[in-house]
Amino acid sequence: MTPQVGYFPDVPAPDTEAAAAARSRQAVLTKPAGALGRLEDLSIWVTACQGHCPPTQFQRARVVVFAGDHGVAASGVSAYPAEVTAAMVANFASGGAAVNVLAEVAGAGVRVADIAVDSEEPLSTAIGAHRIRRSSGNIAIEDALTPDEVVAAIDAGRAIADDEVDSGADLLIAGDMGIGNTTPATTLIAAMTDSEPVAVVGRGTGIDDAGWSRKTGAVRDALYRARRITADPIALLRMCGGADLAAMTGFLAQAAVRRTPVLLDGVVVTAAAMAADNLAPGARLWWRAGHRSTEPAHSLALSHLDLEPIVELDMRLGEGSGALVALPVLRAAVATLASMATFEEAGISGS
Amino acid sequence: MTPQVGYFPDVPAPDTEAAAAARSRQAVLTKPAGALGRLEDLSIWVTACQGHCPPTQFQRARVVVFAGDHGVAASGVSAYPAEVTAAMVANFASGGAAVNVLAEVAGAGVRVADIAVDSEEPLSTAIGAHRIRRSSGNIAIEDALTPDEVVAAIDAGRAIADDEVDSGADLLIAGDMGIGNTTPATTLIAAMTDSEPVAVVGRGTGIDDAGWSRKTGAVRDALYRARRITADPIALLRMCGGADLAAMTGFLAQAAVRRTPVLLDGVVVTAAAMAADNLAPGARLWWRAGHRSTEPAHSLALSHLDLEPIVELDMRLGEGSGALVALPVLRAAVATLASMATFEEAGISGS
Repeated sequence: MTPQVGYFPDVPAPDTEAAAAARSRQAVLTKPAGALGRLEDLSIWVTACQGHCPPTQFQRARVVVFAGDHGVAASGVSAYPAEVTAAMVANFASGGAAVNVLAEVAGAGVRVADIAVDSEEPLSTAIGAHRIRRSSGNIAIEDALTPDEVVAAIDAGRAIADDEVDSGADLLIAGDMGIGNTTPATTLIAAMTDSEPVAVVGRGTGIDDAGWSRKTGAVRDALYRARRITADPIALLRMCGGADLAAMTGFLAQAAVRRTPVLLDGVVVTAAAMAADNLAPGARLWWRAGHRSTEPAHSLALSHLDLEPIVELDMRLGEGSGALVALPVLRAAVATLASMATFEEAGISGS
Repeated sequence: MTPQVGYFPDVPAPDTEAAAAARSRQAVLTKPAGALGRLEDLSIWVTACQGHCPPTQFQRARVVVFAGDHGVAASGVSAYPAEVTAAMVANFASGGAAVNVLAEVAGAGVRVADIAVDSEEPLSTAIGAHRIRRSSGNIAIEDALTPDEVVAAIDAGRAIADDEVDSGADLLIAGDMGIGNTTPATTLIAAMTDSEPVAVVGRGTGIDDAGWSRKTGAVRDALYRARRITADPIALLRMCGGADLAAMTGFLAQAAVRRTPVLLDGVVVTAAAMAADNLAPGARLWWRAGHRSTEPAHSLALSHLDLEPIVELDMRLGEGSGALVALPVLRAAVATLASMATFEEAGISGS
């Protein structure tokens, strides 16, 4: 029997007293009440996560890119060959990818974790420290992982979250890299929301109509295989997820256990987030959605998690890129609450 | 006869060759084609404005806050008394306002220009260097400005734009501060779009139903006074605008003449932008909309200018705050096009 709810300790709720203090402070800053719109809500959320008002600007925001291949890529569900995953890991390591460039703009650090890349050896010992296996199984015809592997992958993500928080991370982002990974992500979301494949399958990196049909077929086959275990997040990750998705699930759940705020990225990360909130109920209170991607399953997952994205820019890249574009907005929210003058300080009899 | 089209020299178009080079480069960066969504469009626009590919990250982004009072505030159209304008100018100068905090997050410098604040003296010589008069007239019952004043105000904004560009500004933002200023802004937009007052009047800083009725009445009266000159942007600014709005108009038109990209802010700046594009046709090609505020007239003006906002966060503060929240997204767009590796550089046979 695989572990279930109870596998993670109870997730604490963000601090409601700090949230109330943030709300009161927003009302006396030198601006009309509510005039900063959603920045005010975001600032209150960060304050509640940090447990003190005013909040502190993020000093160590970190994005962890979980890389993994998927056997289902052999079914022609992606516009790219599986070899691109390993090549992109090398691109991350040399700083040439979108995640590197966007992290620099947003003031975040990047870590790459090869969880299941389909290469002989990981690119480096550090990157491969948590490798579970070489590629996950083809979910259209077989389980992605063994029972031992799925637990090991969740534990790997948990260990990475612990390591980051212990190193001082005060904001975490999960990113994904893996040719074919929107197929298991879409399958997981369809299973957890009881949706028809045709309603949720998207174009991923940009497949044509024939590719979309193959992808929809793969999702349908995987959903059929998983039809009896849709209420069991660990079994779902094992049968129709993958090692990278399981690691992200452990990472997101553990971030909440460790009271660390998270910006979610696109469809792959948000699929793992749904599993993580099932496994560690209440974890979603520690997350905000960075962006809305063009994948239909992403919108569905966000709506099930009751999250409204910060930006909507038609991005569909993964790697944590959407969350990184949203991070400066979150910084702006924190900065206004932390640093604006109050009416009293400014000597204005307003409000 | 006041000056019209021809008052500004012809506005050049952004560089189409540079735009084509940007488009080609986006296609060979290490990501699926189009996967950065609107970031790609924004990066192509910046490249076209700069005239070279890859584009350069903004080194000197500047926000200029145009402060001015409005006689119409005496008609009870705002939730705040007119004295708040001068107090907020002092707050800008001491760094305690939203614009200061958001500019720091976005890496922009702030300049404050007292164009028509209703105080005995400007806060300082520098801030008051372009003051036109003490408050603009109450547009519900009288012209906002004299014929000489409206030209002087447009020229003031033009001089400020020249000064900023000559000092190295490579991105400009106009912000507004003035109790009651959404009333003339809404009047201008209604006049230029031939809209009914009830369809465009919003809550500004947060007026109640009675205040909204007074504001709608003031807009209606001003529109009636201006009914014969709606095609004449300078006459419109004189009769139912104000010195701050005229200065913003000159600033936005001159930014385009000087080939400098601009991020627009909320309803007040966008009202001036509509006037500026009428006065200097094609100026709009040098602008992008930073955000969408909650004011109905703002959405109307954006749609007439054919601009899609970068963020939508229900902000309604002015000061340039919405544009400043969008600026890091524009930086992200520039950074990806300028700094990501190509498939060839990364040794990936993708695309």
